[in-house]
Amino acid sequence: MIYITRKEHFNAAHKLCNDAWDKAKNLEVFGKCANENWHGHNYELFVTVKGQVNKDTGFVVNLKDLGDLIKSDIIEILDHKNLNVDVSGLSNILPSTENVSIFIWDILKPKVNAMGAELHCVKLVETENNYVEYFGGK
Amino acid sequence: MIYITRKEHFNAAHKLCNDAWDKAKNLEVFGKCANENWHGHNYELFVTVKGQVNKDTGFVVNLKDLGDLIKSDIIEILDHKNLNVDVSGLSNILPSTENVSIFIWDILKPKVNAMGAELHCVKLVETENNYVEYFGGK
Amino acid sequence: MIYITRKEHFNAAHKLCNDAWDKAKNLEVFGKCANENWHGHNYELFVTVKGQVNKDTGFVVNLKDLGDLIKSDIIEILDHKNLNVDVSGLSNILPSTENVSIFIWDILKPKVNAMGAELHCVKLVETENNYVEYFGGK
Amino acid sequence: MIYITRKEHFNAAHKLCNDAWDKAKNLEVFGKCANENWHGHNYELFVTVKGQVNKDTGFVVNLKDLGDLIKSDIIEILDHKNLNVDVSGLSNILPSTENVSIFIWDILKPKVNAMGAELHCVKLVETENNYVEYFGGK
Amino acid sequence: MIYITRKEHFNAAHKLCNDAWDKAKNLEVFGKCANENWHGHNYELFVTVKGQVNKDTGFVVNLKDLGDLIKSDIIEILDHKNLNVDVSGLSNILPSTENVSIFIWDILKPKVNAMGAELHCVKLVETENNYVEYFGGK
Amino acid sequence: MIYITRKEHFNAAHKLCNDAWDKAKNLEVFGKCANENWHGHNYELFVTVKGQVNKDTGFVVNLKDLGDLIKSDIIEILDHKNLNVDVSGLSNILPSTENVSIFIWDILKPKVNAMGAELHCVKLVETENNYVEYFGGK
Repeated sequence: MIYITRKEHFNAAHKLCNDAWDKAKNLEVFGKCANENWHGHNYELFVTVKGQVNKDTGFVVNLKDLGDLIKSDIIEILDHKNLNVDVSGLSNILPSTENVSIFIWDILKPKVNAMGAELHCVKLVETENNYVEYFGGK
Repeated sequence: MIYITRKEHFNAAHKLCNDAWDKAKNLEVFGKCANENWHGHNYELFVTVKGQVNKDTGFVVNLKDLGDLIKSDIIEILDHKNLNVDVSGLSNILPSTENVSIFIWDILKPKVNAMGAELHCVKLVETENNYVEYFGGK
Repeated sequence: MIYITRKEHFNAAHKLCNDAWDKAKNLEVFGKCANENWHGHNYELFVTVKGQVNKDTGFVVNLKDLGDLIKSDIIEILDHKNLNVDVSGLSNILPSTENVSIFIWDILKPKVNAMGAELHCVKLVETENNYVEYFGGK
Repeated sequence: MIYITRKEHFNAAHKLCNDAWDKAKNLEVFGKCANENWHGHNYELFVTVKGQVNKDTGFVVNLKDLGDLIKSDIIEILDHKNLNVDVSGLSNILPSTENVSIFIWDILKPKVNAMGAELHCVKLVETENNYVEYFGGK
Repeated sequence: MIYITRKEHFNAAHKLCNDAWDKAKNLEVFGKCANENWHGHNYELFVTVKGQVNKDTGFVVNLKDLGDLIKSDIIEILDHKNLNVDVSGLSNILPSTENVSIFIWDILKPKVNAMGAELHCVKLVETENNYVEYFGGK
Repeated sequence: MIYITRKEHFNAAHKLCNDAWDKAKNLEVFGKCANENWHGHNYELFVTVKGQVNKDTGFVVNLKDLGDLIKSDIIEILDHKNLNVDVSGLSNILPSTENVSIFIWDILKPKVNAMGAELHCVKLVETENNYVEYFGGK
């Protein structure tokens, strides 16, 4: 069993705003992240998969295939987008780093299985000072 | 003459869109950066000033003062904001990295002079793959 | 269950010196780190907590609260300090990266619990070439 | 139980080529990595060991000893070498990041044990966009 | 006048070897870099151009165009190649970082002029500990 | 004319304190940097030299020689030291980043000349948020 990680990135706008709350409550909880006209980030995405090393290739998975999957299924729908507005799968979800990580996990998990490996971790870096890791499960 | 640089950062949303052009032309020139619902970045700002070393302090300028200036006059108005919408000084300007750098220069230049030093360079990093440097002048 | 990490940093002086040993023995074991007049580092501290995502906020913990906790309870007592001399809780402890990590863990663990999450890891980076991770336990 | 990591690096040439396959098949699977005249990388190697903190030193292991071990037993045989040609222990192995990580693990594991600690992880970074982690076992 | 920089990267094998010298002399001058079976690097390339900001776009040059130029004219011929063997323009040149930088400059200079800007600097990072900058001229 | 840069690093303790001032004045000007028991940093040192490319080697200077010079003449006297106490050449100088940069320049300049090149810049990074560049001259 060995673990391999591929890094990709996307740039997106978002805001943190709970529509069930008034403006004052949103400001109290989310601070500047509640700015109604959005702000944004350069997100760095690290996808880790695990599996056995294939004798013929020396690979767990072909990194080109893994990179293509992440680009087509994640980057294409998140890059240069507004996470609150432009992404159908996130339409009723607060786009916190936590929730976006789970969203990415749910998309990638079956696709990585289909490549003959297992998704181990989605790590999403929002700024140089904070990141989230999701390993699946509750 | 010695040069000292202070790094700060801000997160902002923006889009690149020339209102004199139609949607197709904006898409042709600006590509994904024209997404009408915005996208965003973690901007890194490097401000370089130059001057003589003060004998009593060993400093060109007190970095705490320089940091306070950048925070109060730049970060406060750009951080967690929408560069197209929320910043009065940028209201009629395409918020490209180039134009935002010049905007920052124009604010800081007289304030750095007032600290007894000279503004040398504003460097603005938009992503890990591109940055702009402005040294003043035409 | 999801994991979120906050990075902070502090600058400190220290030396590695076992008072039960003579100078030659300290030099043999600790090398340049035994320099009696101290040396120092820019420490990077990564604090990882885990928990369930709150439905109303999208957060495991509010990162602002976690950052405030780390600043008030750790950075305030370690930043711009001498780890051998200035920190009461470290007064009889060799300030190796290992021991400082455990010291930080012991302070943060009950405070993170009080925030409704669980402390998972304290990672302390001493130089770009070495770091320690502590997950609690013996 | 605490974990400490030491980073070293080496520069090497390699190519990915399965001699049982013809050129077209190698190109299909390995893409540009199959270039017959080699290419190369700056590899970053992170070695993590775990153990109890020694009361007299504050150390799990003396990092100088760990660094010396990695330099003498790994860097010396891989740095500025061709991984396909110059390294006897890799002579019949596809030098993928996965296989090189396992090669390093097998060398270091008994030597770290002999230092009174346990090898926990070999992490090998091939480019800024991909890395492998090996924790031993099948 | 404003400066904008685009970063790209390529991975390549090379060796430093002066064919007019014997093996001992090459080893004395180039050390491990003379290894006859090659070694390699992850090169980071920073291309800086300067010019006036276009009023309609806010750009000195369209970064997408600059990136496409670097990819088609530089990365395509250097990435996953052997700099001593595979690159016709370098066939009689020692592929030191200095010489590769000049090689890149000579290709890009007229193409950047044709984009309406001026090439200012080619910076080539060979390892995290060394890089070369070339600004043209003798 | 081409520019080549070598990076080295050292870890040191220091404090900023003007002995002609009382404690309150030092605290007012230097803040936490005046802590009487010292603090410290991981300093990164970038030394840039310029010259013509040697036809036989492809080098401005042999980086191994430049690295050896920096190690023997700078790192040896600053690494794991107290800049206020342990370094004879800094004994009457406030060890600000500015003054340490000038100190390093004055040592290296004639030695780089003796290597057949010219010292262009000493860049000293004190933390990830500030650095000084010195190009000689007044």
